[in-house]
Amino acid sequence: MSNAATAPATALTFEEKLDRLAEVAVRVGLGLQEGQQMVLTSTVDALPLVRRVTAQAYKAGANLVTTLLTDEPSSLLRYQYGRSESFDVAADWLYEGMAQAYRNGAARQAIYCSNPALLANEDPEKVSRANRSQSRAYRPAMEQITKFNINWNILAAATPDWATLVFPGIPVEQAVEKLWDAIFVACRIDQPDPVAAWKAHDANLHKRADYMNAKRFHALQYNGPGTNLRVGLADDHMWLGGGSVALNGAYCIPNMPTEEIFTTPHKNRADGTVRSTKPLSHQGTLIQDIEVRFENGRIVEAHAAAGESVLHKMIDTDEGGRRLGEVALVPHSSPISASGILFYNTLFDENAACHIALGQAYSSCFENAGNLTPADLAARGANESLIHVDWMIGSGEIDIDGVHADGKTEPLMRKGEWVTE
Amino acid sequence: MSNAATAPATALTFEEKLDRLAEVAVRVGLGLQEGQQMVLTSTVDALPLVRRVTAQAYKAGANLVTTLLTDEPSSLLRYQYGRSESFDVAADWLYEGMAQAYRNGAARQAIYCSNPALLANEDPEKVSRANRSQSRAYRPAMEQITKFNINWNILAAATPDWATLVFPGIPVEQAVEKLWDAIFVACRIDQPDPVAAWKAHDANLHKRADYMNAKRFHALQYNGPGTNLRVGLADDHMWLGGGSVALNGAYCIPNMPTEEIFTTPHKNRADGTVRSTKPLSHQGTLIQDIEVRFENGRIVEAHAAAGESVLHKMIDTDEGGRRLGEVALVPHSSPISASGILFYNTLFDENAACHIALGQAYSSCFENAGNLTPADLAARGANESLIHVDWMIGSGEIDIDGVHADGKTEPLMRKGEWVTE
Repeated sequence: MSNAATAPATALTFEEKLDRLAEVAVRVGLGLQEGQQMVLTSTVDALPLVRRVTAQAYKAGANLVTTLLTDEPSSLLRYQYGRSESFDVAADWLYEGMAQAYRNGAARQAIYCSNPALLANEDPEKVSRANRSQSRAYRPAMEQITKFNINWNILAAATPDWATLVFPGIPVEQAVEKLWDAIFVACRIDQPDPVAAWKAHDANLHKRADYMNAKRFHALQYNGPGTNLRVGLADDHMWLGGGSVALNGAYCIPNMPTEEIFTTPHKNRADGTVRSTKPLSHQGTLIQDIEVRFENGRIVEAHAAAGESVLHKMIDTDEGGRRLGEVALVPHSSPISASGILFYNTLFDENAACHIALGQAYSSCFENAGNLTPADLAARGANESLIHVDWMIGSGEIDIDGVHADGKTEPLMRKGEWVTE
Repeated sequence: MSNAATAPATALTFEEKLDRLAEVAVRVGLGLQEGQQMVLTSTVDALPLVRRVTAQAYKAGANLVTTLLTDEPSSLLRYQYGRSESFDVAADWLYEGMAQAYRNGAARQAIYCSNPALLANEDPEKVSRANRSQSRAYRPAMEQITKFNINWNILAAATPDWATLVFPGIPVEQAVEKLWDAIFVACRIDQPDPVAAWKAHDANLHKRADYMNAKRFHALQYNGPGTNLRVGLADDHMWLGGGSVALNGAYCIPNMPTEEIFTTPHKNRADGTVRSTKPLSHQGTLIQDIEVRFENGRIVEAHAAAGESVLHKMIDTDEGGRRLGEVALVPHSSPISASGILFYNTLFDENAACHIALGQAYSSCFENAGNLTPADLAARGANESLIHVDWMIGSGEIDIDGVHADGKTEPLMRKGEWVTE
């Protein structure tokens, strides 16, 4: 690590903090290997961070950084002027190219800073068709990521649109500054030694995952307001948290921030009702107050106070869109929850609360994961889908028990906190 | 055309002129077909025009616009921090993806607004290696373009870096405004009816090309200060100018502005000396006062007052880098020449003066072009190379004669102007 990353955080300028964030992302989060290529994605609003990440990548020995920039006002023009057929196509050639880059060994660094409400006023039918087309095109690239064939990392950048949504009613410059501060805190950039802080945090997440793996629970039982849900865990499931070694040998912590441990639920064994505890920002639409009912792993009823049609279209993407692909545990006292900020951004909000994801399972959450075929994964209960959408079901009012195969239960969380240290 | 394109130009706001430029580019320049996809490339500095072009493309029936944005400060970071090996690689996956998009029928719209001096202070060795790697990766996509398998168009946008170079010594906002005005004039956006103006201009270029095609000259003889050059024309060569029908059936005018008629010289039949009359901006380096000597079509001696090492590396790209791939005639009174502005941008400067290009020939400049194999093209004298670099050799002091196969000559241009109307 350079000096910039060990100087006292209080003495740092904004530019230095940005640089430190980029360095922590590239070296600790992504674990970029010397000689490796990097594919960097971002919106143009985050260009200052894009440049810092690019610089840090080259300093860390990147062989080439290729940046794909999205301009959100340009994206909206399709909704304004595009003909109907345009929503059923995607840039297959570009996504296939990305998949090829990953197959050839490139690491993937994403800067996630989309306007959470970008598509809020667009026709949900068009939004859904465009998302579906894009998911289909993106699938080969996403497989390289979800299978952890490569090292990858997602971090965030504060942008005016996003900051205004998070901190309404104050001048936009102030909102952006507050959001950057929240990002720096959540990513431990405010710590005297962010790298040491991340190592300690990573060890802590691993300890918690080890605890759960030793228990080998058959299911989890969630109880709270509007929630009475039993989620079966996949056979041979493994809890993961913090960093892991990708199949290319690089150690990476894929999300910054991250406060969760997570594993793969069994696609056929979720039963009961569950209520969301935070709004879900899904590809430009806010879905609020979700309530769904599962039977034998499948959503048979789904409501939302806002964005219900987008929710319905999302779960209708394919058969796996109605089944669970991830279950994650986060204490209510996590730093991101403690900030009291609703980020409208899954990368943050999922680390403020226990959550579940509909859709594609991570094939890495299994014992002996590297040797399992798609058939092996399916036999163990891993779900398949074009989508993977996390949403928050935890709060200070949720109790969670671990359920053993013989039906015996053990308390895991009470009022959103771990029962054991 | 929309109303915006027929309103009096003097009454137009800057935003309206930008919109008109975008509309003329998409409908007259590119000739975008309904249902066609578009690949749009630009630097982030031209986002306002990017958005206008995107809107006009969707209005014209584009099925999807995919935009690839370059951030020049990010590009410089490779030179600042990248390891040596990084200059021998390129994003092959991305360029192959673009080629695939074109093979699948996408049109190509480029907004060319790079800082002409971006790489002026970088190591020419690294610049050359990076250019070579990129040219190699880009070749499959470039073939789709040079063979006119698809319709394509290049236009320009005024950016601060470029404007400052063109108009030094005045405030940057003024420089940008002056450069935009020059672009609007060169692209006939100042005319009452730009579409009608382009049609008349296009017809005029076709008339000039038809005249030259009827003459079937064997060679051109250039005489002027520092120049005594005979350029053989390829067998079965065809002069082209203005628009043409791409092999996908779309009528496109590939360059905006365009004032040239051009054809393919014979790769083995250039002899004598030639001096450049304007600086050449080549991928971020300015090459000034070029003087080269040809023998049997091959450059055997090359000098430049500035950028000589970049010139040498450029012509050493491959065997075809030392031979001619294009010869173009532009009267010295062309509107771009008349503006008196040195643009440091080939898209403009090549339309202010007669020019030649080193490297790859356009296979479209032949009789019966669609049916010629690579072997047929080579047999007719068409050059092959990874590069295609235009440079200006015309001025008000240049005389050009057409040379027939029997050695008889006819005056074509005197002091830079056509002899015949």
